[in-house]
Amino acid sequence: MAKAPKNAISPSRAEDYPEWYQQVIRASDLAENSPVRGCMVIKPWGYRLWENMQRALDDMFKATGHQNAYFPLFIPMSFLEKEAEHVEGFAKECAVVTHHRLEPDPDGGLRPAGKLEEPLIVRPTSETIIGATYAKWVQSHRDLPILINQWANVVRWEMRTRMFLRTAEFLWQEGHTVHATSEEAIAETEQMIDVYADFAENWMAMPVIIGSKTADERFPGAVETLSIEAMMQDRKALQAGTSHFLGQNFSKAQEIVFQAENGEREYAWTTSWGVSTRLVGALIMSHSDDDGLVVPPRLAPSQVVILPIYRDESQRAAVLQYVERIKDELTAQQYAGSAVRVEVDDRDIRGGEKKWHHVKRGVPIRLEIGPKDIEKDAVFLGRRDQAKSVSMGRAELIAEISSLLEEMQQGLFDKARKLRDDHSRVITTESDFRDFFTSADPQDIHGGFAHCHFASEEELQPLLKELKVTIRCIPREDNDEAGVCFLTGKPAAKKAIFAKAY
Amino acid sequence: MAKAPKNAISPSRAEDYPEWYQQVIRASDLAENSPVRGCMVIKPWGYRLWENMQRALDDMFKATGHQNAYFPLFIPMSFLEKEAEHVEGFAKECAVVTHHRLEPDPDGGLRPAGKLEEPLIVRPTSETIIGATYAKWVQSHRDLPILINQWANVVRWEMRTRMFLRTAEFLWQEGHTVHATSEEAIAETEQMIDVYADFAENWMAMPVIIGSKTADERFPGAVETLSIEAMMQDRKALQAGTSHFLGQNFSKAQEIVFQAENGEREYAWTTSWGVSTRLVGALIMSHSDDDGLVVPPRLAPSQVVILPIYRDESQRAAVLQYVERIKDELTAQQYAGSAVRVEVDDRDIRGGEKKWHHVKRGVPIRLEIGPKDIEKDAVFLGRRDQAKSVSMGRAELIAEISSLLEEMQQGLFDKARKLRDDHSRVITTESDFRDFFTSADPQDIHGGFAHCHFASEEELQPLLKELKVTIRCIPREDNDEAGVCFLTGKPAAKKAIFAKAY
Repeated sequence: MAKAPKNAISPSRAEDYPEWYQQVIRASDLAENSPVRGCMVIKPWGYRLWENMQRALDDMFKATGHQNAYFPLFIPMSFLEKEAEHVEGFAKECAVVTHHRLEPDPDGGLRPAGKLEEPLIVRPTSETIIGATYAKWVQSHRDLPILINQWANVVRWEMRTRMFLRTAEFLWQEGHTVHATSEEAIAETEQMIDVYADFAENWMAMPVIIGSKTADERFPGAVETLSIEAMMQDRKALQAGTSHFLGQNFSKAQEIVFQAENGEREYAWTTSWGVSTRLVGALIMSHSDDDGLVVPPRLAPSQVVILPIYRDESQRAAVLQYVERIKDELTAQQYAGSAVRVEVDDRDIRGGEKKWHHVKRGVPIRLEIGPKDIEKDAVFLGRRDQAKSVSMGRAELIAEISSLLEEMQQGLFDKARKLRDDHSRVITTESDFRDFFTSADPQDIHGGFAHCHFASEEELQPLLKELKVTIRCIPREDNDEAGVCFLTGKPAAKKAIFAKAY
Repeated sequence: MAKAPKNAISPSRAEDYPEWYQQVIRASDLAENSPVRGCMVIKPWGYRLWENMQRALDDMFKATGHQNAYFPLFIPMSFLEKEAEHVEGFAKECAVVTHHRLEPDPDGGLRPAGKLEEPLIVRPTSETIIGATYAKWVQSHRDLPILINQWANVVRWEMRTRMFLRTAEFLWQEGHTVHATSEEAIAETEQMIDVYADFAENWMAMPVIIGSKTADERFPGAVETLSIEAMMQDRKALQAGTSHFLGQNFSKAQEIVFQAENGEREYAWTTSWGVSTRLVGALIMSHSDDDGLVVPPRLAPSQVVILPIYRDESQRAAVLQYVERIKDELTAQQYAGSAVRVEVDDRDIRGGEKKWHHVKRGVPIRLEIGPKDIEKDAVFLGRRDQAKSVSMGRAELIAEISSLLEEMQQGLFDKARKLRDDHSRVITTESDFRDFFTSADPQDIHGGFAHCHFASEEELQPLLKELKVTIRCIPREDNDEAGVCFLTGKPAAKKAIFAKAY
């Protein structure tokens, strides 16, 4: 058997975290850079992870009364001219379609032809095109609420890209709702950030903090932006989902007007909310280790991989028969509402290489099964979260598989939660704040979440800029005690979370 | 109760088939035109239909060993310069991205800025970008086969668009596979057209004919194109899915080369295959009638809608309690591998309006339930495929729901099959061929599928052009008997199907 390296991923997290991230994606075969600048190819293992995320989220959206629909990829440029603030924040760096044909050029190549009268923008987000459609749909209060979600690709022309975290094209869902009252729209905004937090914690095993964005960090055009913020293993924050209360800002720009019960014509109240393939990046950085990807069992494309072991053809038939039986028995078990997902890897490659293939891809449970195991009616079980493998009887395995997976799921959550707790501080002075976010070698992992009272976003900016720290959110929970600003000493009603961030 | 019109859709199919099609889409709330030229908005009812199609197809793709992945939306223009024949056929009319930013213009509007060094094409199909990626993935015969599918949006700049049938942007899936041998690639091509035929017949209840395209009708760059062809109710043909054997044409253009077991470097053999939201158009035109949409039960977003009937609050509670019980009992039943999909419509609108709402949307079964029905422990059942409603005991309904839905599914297939049989002819002379495809009023529904021996595609062109008839395919089944060309009398090995087409 091949001698395994000490760790499968080089460099380690401690050595070079950003490079470790790239190497985990490579080793686990999730995605790769494409020939198109800033766009990635999501490979089958990465796409199955995304499909599992989609399925769980989609079920939650439908359970909260939403329906899916599909709106055009393109937005006429004039639509963006109506919403100045939104364009300033969003649509400046975008893909602009100006022609609708290719024709041969004199050098034997091709060139654009058929200039469009009005350029089209590849959607960076769909508020404007969906709003224009809603304006036609909404006439009366009886047409409200509209509760629609869209699964789609969007494009934002990013200069510096990193796979899953920031790419020019990415996949996402965007919910867009319309309501008769401000109260209903705010309740929707809150409900959807709760759905995201539920998904992050219970499916991704990623603890998150729900809070409001400060004015400078809000979605362009929003009255309020709620977000979920998670701590990655390098202690940086990652914004994993946002839900925006748009007030009447977009309905006024787009004339979404309804006749109320009292006969008055009123502007509607709208929301939007979204998560994207960025969640795959968050998942990687929450749980993976120096041996590669670690996937929470609920989202794992394969929850169990079986590796049949045999020396020759005479052993092969018996082993594969036993393997198929165990596969069937495992698949008959339910975990998190679905049949347990089992893969058999009978490729003709060396055992060590095969084992590490699945370790690096983050499969939660590996079962090695050879003639000696069969004699004992047992399997040799390796868990992705433990170094040692153990022998386990077949009957016990079948009986315990669901609770075993759930134990691993909970273990990942607890571990991530402990990391966050260990690196969260209440900070009350500038000098402690500076110390917390400063390291002799800035490449070393340092800092975390600083919980600080603050009085004015504006007054903090020079310090935050200097330290490359941002205000992540004003947490919703446990934040009622007034205090004084850590920088200015002025009275401050709320604490915010400060962190370096993705 | 409102007096219902004789038929819900005007004009009828006989009066004006193309306009009837648009009106069915409107009345059933499937989709609408968007503010973006040639692009449609797929509304929730239409999108759920597409989601149900996707789910069934995706399961079939996975059962035949395929995995999903995702490739970039954009294709560098230089990629298309490599594949001249493909570009000629496909990429000429496309959306061309030339800039990556918007900036304010002097008039207070916006204008494109940040010109790209190389224009990007919004994918009209992904052969070239996926091929370039496969060229990197494929080194050895051990890397083969690659069996990947992508669900995506694509754009083709169509001048004349019709919802679902031909839109500038549409949703589809495209399978792209790579094989070590010609035989394997041909087997894949055949397998996938069989999957499509299975889906069309068993899920869409739409009988199809599998055959090969003639040289002029092939996918640009393909060695062979297989298609499934269906007859719509206006007797025109609709190509509902295609599977292409690309030979080594694309692998040579894109350098997809592998080291064979014998050590030789060889060009790989590739295939591609796809179906699109066009299938929704095919579904509409296969089954719908002058009262609106008719959806085969297996794909119906709601298979049963329950309409509670009561006069006052005192009746309401009892009726809704009974309705919920029946809903739970129905949902506990399985049909076609899923829980029966039941919707309750308790909106406060008039009964007649409500009933017609669901008739027009094509819900297979309507249950009206009021106090008198409850006394009898029964429901008043209306089938979308029958005019009269009948009373049925609750227990019988629950016991029979699955076979009732299956009976309706089969009934739709049989009816569509009969239409096709009634309007298919073996034709052996030019004069019969002319008669078959000619009508005093060309707007009248006429013609159908002509099965004719033919010797040379080229020699037929003037006649076909004159009559606006195309060669749909050379059927795979029952086509071994040689004959003579209906036009030239020359010996002909095979029959083809001729029809007017979408």
